Amino acid sequence: MNTIGLVAFALVGSSKAIREEFDVFGIAIVGLAMAFVGGATRDLLVTRVPLVLQSPIEIVLGLLGVGLAMVLSVVLESPDTHPVTLVADAIGLAAFATTGAIVATDAGVSAFGVVAIAMINAVGGGAFADILLDRAPFILFEDFYASCAVLGGAAYWLTGVVGASGSTAAGACAVVTVGMRLVAVTYDWHLPTVQRLELLRE
Amino acid sequence: MNTIGLVAFALVGSSKAIREEFDVFGIAIVGLAMAFVGGATRDLLVTRVPLVLQSPIEIVLGLLGVGLAMVLSVVLESPDTHPVTLVADAIGLAAFATTGAIVATDAGVSAFGVVAIAMINAVGGGAFADILLDRAPFILFEDFYASCAVLGGAAYWLTGVVGASGSTAAGACAVVTVGMRLVAVTYDWHLPTVQRLELLRE
Amino acid sequence: MNTIGLVAFALVGSSKAIREEFDVFGIAIVGLAMAFVGGATRDLLVTRVPLVLQSPIEIVLGLLGVGLAMVLSVVLESPDTHPVTLVADAIGLAAFATTGAIVATDAGVSAFGVVAIAMINAVGGGAFADILLDRAPFILFEDFYASCAVLGGAAYWLTGVVGASGSTAAGACAVVTVGMRLVAVTYDWHLPTVQRLELLRE
Repeated sequence: MNTIGLVAFALVGSSKAIREEFDVFGIAIVGLAMAFVGGATRDLLVTRVPLVLQSPIEIVLGLLGVGLAMVLSVVLESPDTHPVTLVADAIGLAAFATTGAIVATDAGVSAFGVVAIAMINAVGGGAFADILLDRAPFILFEDFYASCAVLGGAAYWLTGVVGASGSTAAGACAVVTVGMRLVAVTYDWHLPTVQRLELLRE
Repeated sequence: MNTIGLVAFALVGSSKAIREEFDVFGIAIVGLAMAFVGGATRDLLVTRVPLVLQSPIEIVLGLLGVGLAMVLSVVLESPDTHPVTLVADAIGLAAFATTGAIVATDAGVSAFGVVAIAMINAVGGGAFADILLDRAPFILFEDFYASCAVLGGAAYWLTGVVGASGSTAAGACAVVTVGMRLVAVTYDWHLPTVQRLELLRE
Repeated sequence: MNTIGLVAFALVGSSKAIREEFDVFGIAIVGLAMAFVGGATRDLLVTRVPLVLQSPIEIVLGLLGVGLAMVLSVVLESPDTHPVTLVADAIGLAAFATTGAIVATDAGVSAFGVVAIAMINAVGGGAFADILLDRAPFILFEDFYASCAVLGGAAYWLTGVVGASGSTAAGACAVVTVGMRLVAVTYDWHLPTVQRLELLRE
């Protein structure tokens, strides 16, 4: 799952940079940032050297996603919104949220810390990629996306509280995150703004 | 003071996100980022796990500020510029600058390090919130705001140099920061741009 | 070389902030950010307290660059594109890439980690300054700039692999980075966008 996630995230980030007409270096950086900044931030928050700087395999997967984005951009208008990419991205979201929850629990942080690190691991890369593209991070006003990682992180913590093993908790986190995300994509879920909530009340 | 600061900072951040029509998730993230990113950056700079990920109380205060912003946005046009908020924000600025100066001194950094960490602790959250909102951080071109934290940090360091105890230095830092900020708000102080300085010279 | 780099980077960052009409505090922050954020990020990635918070000399050099930018902005339209600045900036790029490669190697990261940290040390400050100015980092779509640091980092790693000493590797990194950058400036090199590559193919 982590493998699929790294390739999918790098592909999505690079596709956005291609549309902004960044040069090939910029495309690679935005793709790699989307794939790795979430995990690197997770590692910094628990004060350890980011895994991506130590493992040679992870970076190959990221570069594969960057290359795929460049090749696919010739044949597809926007490879990052293709159904296959959306599913791969949901799997990545779940894999990253689960890894974040595991690392956070090992570091002994609070329940909020577990949920926060699961979410940062899952969506930090996408948010940082949007900042590099000079946009407000899309997770803040569009779509039911980061919320899936928050629910997944909460599922991990809750499963642990009721006494389940670490691998059961990891499974719960992954299933909740990917399930919620696929449902959200299928039914085009959105969270309301405060303006919308006020309209509803009237 | 720290309590007031966390609530006030989260309220100000969330109010900005409400005006940008972010969804409720985005509103919570921007509010929590404004309240906690400064302190988390402080902790990362002295290589320790951010306090907010470990203490369950801090996050409750942040969420209280987020909730207040949503409720108040119904009755007030901009709760973040209400006089009560401005005073609470100034108190938060002082509390955060003082905490930053104390942590930095404990970590054994240079005089510049103490001032820098006091300032980052106090205004890092606001600057990051503005980046999430896709703006240049307001502290860089508006208002006499971050300068108060810089002066507070300098006061902390100077008081320490002349031999005062840690709690005297903390008091000096807090008084200078909150005092300067309230004076700056009252008299609408601004720092000049270089363009303005050149005009003055002519 | 590091000395020249700190002054040049702070000057370039501050000059950009002056053109955006930031106040004098904002000008200083953007200049210092450009000079120090790359090195601070490098230190955080290998989990140590940033050098700039400990060494009193570094900050003086940064403030010198900020002051130079303010003074020169009166006599020159854009001191940051003056030939002297471009050369000093290239020297800084090389010095920072080399320092990054050395620190990364000492921390025992992978080959990719060495190249990544060399690049982040060299261009992280400039990218962060652009984010503060609410722009997409210029390194992502303009110029042959960060690529020089990537090639320098790769030269450092390759020289080490073939058995050369650390100081030979450092020399190779510095020469490759500054050489490539000066050639790129002289001949106005750019990397292509994907759109350009597709046009070429047709």
